[in-house]
Amino acid sequence: MRNTNRSWILEARPFGDDFDDALKLRDLPMPEAGPGQILVRSLYLSLDPANRGWMMMDTYIPAVPLGGPMWGFVLGRVERSSDPAFAPGDLVSGFGSWSDYCVMEAAAANKLPDLGGLPLHAAQSLFGLSGGTAYVGVIDIAKAQPGETLVVSGAAGSVGSLVGQIAKIQGCRVIGIAGSPEKCAWLTEELGFDHAIDYRREDVGERVAALCPKGVDIYFENVGGALGNAVISHIALRGRVVLCGFMAKFKAPGLDVDLGPVLLNRATIQGFIMVDHFHRLPAVNADLAKWFAEGRIKHRADIVDGLEHTVEAFRQLFTPGAPHMGKLLVRVDPAAD
Amino acid sequence: MRNTNRSWILEARPFGDDFDDALKLRDLPMPEAGPGQILVRSLYLSLDPANRGWMMMDTYIPAVPLGGPMWGFVLGRVERSSDPAFAPGDLVSGFGSWSDYCVMEAAAANKLPDLGGLPLHAAQSLFGLSGGTAYVGVIDIAKAQPGETLVVSGAAGSVGSLVGQIAKIQGCRVIGIAGSPEKCAWLTEELGFDHAIDYRREDVGERVAALCPKGVDIYFENVGGALGNAVISHIALRGRVVLCGFMAKFKAPGLDVDLGPVLLNRATIQGFIMVDHFHRLPAVNADLAKWFAEGRIKHRADIVDGLEHTVEAFRQLFTPGAPHMGKLLVRVDPAAD
Repeated sequence: MRNTNRSWILEARPFGDDFDDALKLRDLPMPEAGPGQILVRSLYLSLDPANRGWMMMDTYIPAVPLGGPMWGFVLGRVERSSDPAFAPGDLVSGFGSWSDYCVMEAAAANKLPDLGGLPLHAAQSLFGLSGGTAYVGVIDIAKAQPGETLVVSGAAGSVGSLVGQIAKIQGCRVIGIAGSPEKCAWLTEELGFDHAIDYRREDVGERVAALCPKGVDIYFENVGGALGNAVISHIALRGRVVLCGFMAKFKAPGLDVDLGPVLLNRATIQGFIMVDHFHRLPAVNADLAKWFAEGRIKHRADIVDGLEHTVEAFRQLFTPGAPHMGKLLVRVDPAAD
Repeated sequence: MRNTNRSWILEARPFGDDFDDALKLRDLPMPEAGPGQILVRSLYLSLDPANRGWMMMDTYIPAVPLGGPMWGFVLGRVERSSDPAFAPGDLVSGFGSWSDYCVMEAAAANKLPDLGGLPLHAAQSLFGLSGGTAYVGVIDIAKAQPGETLVVSGAAGSVGSLVGQIAKIQGCRVIGIAGSPEKCAWLTEELGFDHAIDYRREDVGERVAALCPKGVDIYFENVGGALGNAVISHIALRGRVVLCGFMAKFKAPGLDVDLGPVLLNRATIQGFIMVDHFHRLPAVNADLAKWFAEGRIKHRADIVDGLEHTVEAFRQLFTPGAPHMGKLLVRVDPAAD
């Protein structure tokens, strides 16, 4: 084990998707695990749109402190443990940082479940946060019913691609919104979505109106802004809008939602954040594993090699038309998997 | 009974609160009650903000046809009946029109409950639509809990004034938003609201922030626009926004809602329309009558005499700072009550 540790340090709050001035890769002393903590060697970093919010401001967690390592969800191997529940060599996932080695609170770390022969990265591309968010949003929050029409934005992303597939398993008709012909083809040809809308080449409101003459029963919102409003304006009677994220938010802050159709259609808009639902993960992961084994759900990891490429990869999440599909991961040590 | 019948005829769709070109009082032949219908002599017309939407466009009901009488909720006495459930002389409330005499579908009319010695207009100022909307919104939709903070806009109106009082009975802390010092004084001095905000003289966002350091648990929305957004931006963790109406809507259509705080606080926005909840009215009316008898709830009718003054009175609902407080009613025949 080295004596130094590379870490992406948050040195300024970013604006929009300008991350180069905000985040710098620094070589720092190796951190130590205090009581109740574990030192983890990072194998994979999960890159998630929510990370941007954490950089910018207090959200459902306080803002990442300036001068400290950037926080993120990490999959790694325990190197040293000051907690009896973990031993060196254990594979864990949890709240860590964008670093070669990070310290996790043992109470906020989880031993990896049996992946049933799947590659290690499936813990982030199928199970865990992405699958959990998709599952809880579709099943617990929206209570999707057979025959309903579900529209999801950010459909080619880690959560969106699973949202559509889980909704299909529930018997819904599914329409995905994504930003390139390649992504749209992936949704309909590989993942079984009924339709896809390319928001960069088509008028979302017109297409939703044409595809959903009875309105949108469920809208799973990952994007926000004008795109979100175009869908919400077609909400069906007693429709549900599941607010999961706003990838467009900081680019177009003036584009908000007209609540008129929500009132007229007695619809519901509900915000949810997966951290409130972690207790559901064992049951969620069991269903996801079963559906995967039955060939009813696919997952895709878009893996970028090398901690030094983290910020470059992260920017893709906010670049309309970027080629990335599925779960975006950094393999910190390319020899690890 | 006369042979002619005065009716407010919708001759054009109004824009904003310009009703003079849209509605004309005409003398027409007396209508006849067909099978399943009753002819009702109007005693009181209930003037409600929702009426404007009905004039303008299809809402939860089709738009009022041009050239026909303006629809409204009417309290009156059965003059002729083609339905065995009603007899001449019965007092009824139901969906009628702004006319001296109107035809109601018997299936959509209700015999008045025992008013327990209250004046006739209490059927509209305490019971029925106004009380029902307030009760269902606070108790069934928002599920108000003791100790929670509820903010209501349009607080000096028929629904808003009852919302605050019902929330107080549920043990909530209540803040009302209204448009004059007189209205604010009525809320806090007569109706027991904890605080009132005069939106024409104070900064709503600043006042809500100061009065609700832990956020707004429940926002009962009657107004919309910038005012609504100023409150929703202070929604509390797991807060609920009950969408009841948008009185400001057609004046400031560009002012929509930022859903960011709704997501971060895992809040819910739910639209509801009382017509879906009419089955609750017997239980609601029983509770309202009990609370009134116990001196725990007050109601106020602002009564304008004469059908010919209907449009002039109706305009008050959309005039910021208009003196009207409580339920706005037209007494069609001043000798009737």
